[in-house]
Amino acid sequence: MRHLLLAAVAAASLALPVQAQEPAPVPSPGEIAAAAKADEWIAIAPSDLLVMELAPDAKGKARRVVIQLMPAPFSQGWIGNIRKLAAAHWWDGTSVNRVQDNYVAQWGDATEKKPLPKGLAVVPESEYMWPYRPAMFTKIWTYGAPQDAVMPIYPSPPATSPVTNYTDPYARAFGFFGGFPFAATIKQSREGGNYKREPESVWPIHCYGAVGVGRNMSPDTGSGAELYVVIGHAPRHLDQNIAVVGRVLGGIEYLSSLPRGTGALGFYEEAAERVPVKAIRLAIDLPADERPKFEYLSTESASFLRYADARANRRDPFFIKPAAGADICNIPVPVRAVTAK
Amino acid sequence: MRHLLLAAVAAASLALPVQAQEPAPVPSPGEIAAAAKADEWIAIAPSDLLVMELAPDAKGKARRVVIQLMPAPFSQGWIGNIRKLAAAHWWDGTSVNRVQDNYVAQWGDATEKKPLPKGLAVVPESEYMWPYRPAMFTKIWTYGAPQDAVMPIYPSPPATSPVTNYTDPYARAFGFFGGFPFAATIKQSREGGNYKREPESVWPIHCYGAVGVGRNMSPDTGSGAELYVVIGHAPRHLDQNIAVVGRVLGGIEYLSSLPRGTGALGFYEEAAERVPVKAIRLAIDLPADERPKFEYLSTESASFLRYADARANRRDPFFIKPAAGADICNIPVPVRAVTAK
Repeated sequence: MRHLLLAAVAAASLALPVQAQEPAPVPSPGEIAAAAKADEWIAIAPSDLLVMELAPDAKGKARRVVIQLMPAPFSQGWIGNIRKLAAAHWWDGTSVNRVQDNYVAQWGDATEKKPLPKGLAVVPESEYMWPYRPAMFTKIWTYGAPQDAVMPIYPSPPATSPVTNYTDPYARAFGFFGGFPFAATIKQSREGGNYKREPESVWPIHCYGAVGVGRNMSPDTGSGAELYVVIGHAPRHLDQNIAVVGRVLGGIEYLSSLPRGTGALGFYEEAAERVPVKAIRLAIDLPADERPKFEYLSTESASFLRYADARANRRDPFFIKPAAGADICNIPVPVRAVTAK
Repeated sequence: MRHLLLAAVAAASLALPVQAQEPAPVPSPGEIAAAAKADEWIAIAPSDLLVMELAPDAKGKARRVVIQLMPAPFSQGWIGNIRKLAAAHWWDGTSVNRVQDNYVAQWGDATEKKPLPKGLAVVPESEYMWPYRPAMFTKIWTYGAPQDAVMPIYPSPPATSPVTNYTDPYARAFGFFGGFPFAATIKQSREGGNYKREPESVWPIHCYGAVGVGRNMSPDTGSGAELYVVIGHAPRHLDQNIAVVGRVLGGIEYLSSLPRGTGALGFYEEAAERVPVKAIRLAIDLPADERPKFEYLSTESASFLRYADARANRRDPFFIKPAAGADICNIPVPVRAVTAK
């Protein structure tokens, strides 16, 4: 695979003249995102970025993980707690205590005795899902091309060719909102002579990089003090069973490449194995020159639709057979770090 | 999450008396597999186990990765090459050269100059899929309960309650064979007054832990000398585009937890970052007392059907809402290492 992949990188970075006889190669999903217009990228507010500084690695290299918190109305009870925990510097001196292969890396207070700040919310399980609000999604994704979120069932939506399969074994449909993927139920209603269908309930989902809230047995839903990130195949069975509060935008490799814990469920057996968390802060509470800046590709943009289609139908040169389908976790919303000019 | 999970482990390991008033908790998928009968486990032949010894880690700990090669008729051209490469000790002294987060770890000859053994097959792309052979799958998995692989469409298969959604956005159906997951097309045929449907073409798929064959641009399909393992969310878009030849049964953490490469596509930029491969052998070519022994849970067994249902419908105590669905890569075939008694 090495030759190919290096060749593809070279082709993208050198502006080689294209010969008249040879059509330009179809761009890869990454190339489509990279070519998106500036106004298709959305800056993430520093008040929605959670910055975790792990202790430096064995070579003294800093390890910073940047997390985007989920937009309202989703998971805001837990996210309010997370903001309070960060403001109280509660995580400083805690640690990454669990790394289970193909599952999660988890951090918090290993002693389970550190007092929590006062005033944290107790969030009910009902907040694992949320009623759909009109215009929350611009498109819904099921079988076939992404469709308007409110659509008549009769007549059928126009057929596309080739039909792309975006069905989800875990939900009737999915959509994107604020840079995050959500699953949805669909309700059918009657308007005049037509039946319409639109999303009814929506919930955030566990894809690679999703950040969730550890909890004890139901009806406990966790405070937000114990957090984990998905570092393996999407554990979608956790959807609606644990709160998803964000996703990692940068630095996930500092968690996903940690040694796996050898205790039950990947907990580290020795205290020395734990990776110290130096600090967790909202970016807005950092000095301006230390704030990370990230953007995501608007999921309402034309480039995102092209990107998603290319994720489901790879036509760039390496591929010989497009899949004609994709699962939602195989369409990660593109993000990019913005560095000072 | 910590309390819960440790409590669950304790409950499984201590034979606590169950009170008459409290129904026994529903077992987790792992508990179902662990309780399977001895004859539901199938020993994997040592001629089908590929054993990779990486250089010991920084603390001197041995790192052994064990791979099950895929059964005939799938990918046998490449697997024949892999057997020759192992017999020639070709990989000894090569290295892991690429680790890309949420994608693959890849090993082979970093110099790309090491001569290959003579007589390796050149395998055509047509071998990325295979005609379905009657009785290859005992069940096919689509929407609803797993169904007999040949079934009438009219009348409909019996409704199950609740209906479980095993649809796959990448294929019409899936099935299991020899411990591996496969996707399938479906053909419809007429027999008497009924239409029957059954799998037509089948192909191995890229789930977490799948081992594939690196290649250059089409029509190259790779020799098998350059191999990778999936260490992230299933990259199903690679199905039918690259050969899958096996899956990792043990030691994947020695690859998935390696530092990510900082070069393009996760290649290591410095030779010192590469992890040396000491040796790769078939288990049958190792001294008897050094051979790993593994078993997989027969995918034809009653316990596997219960396990798969539990993967799609978690009813064990931690869960409050079963998903009523699962994607094939979230139903990994259980394996266990067998140690000498």
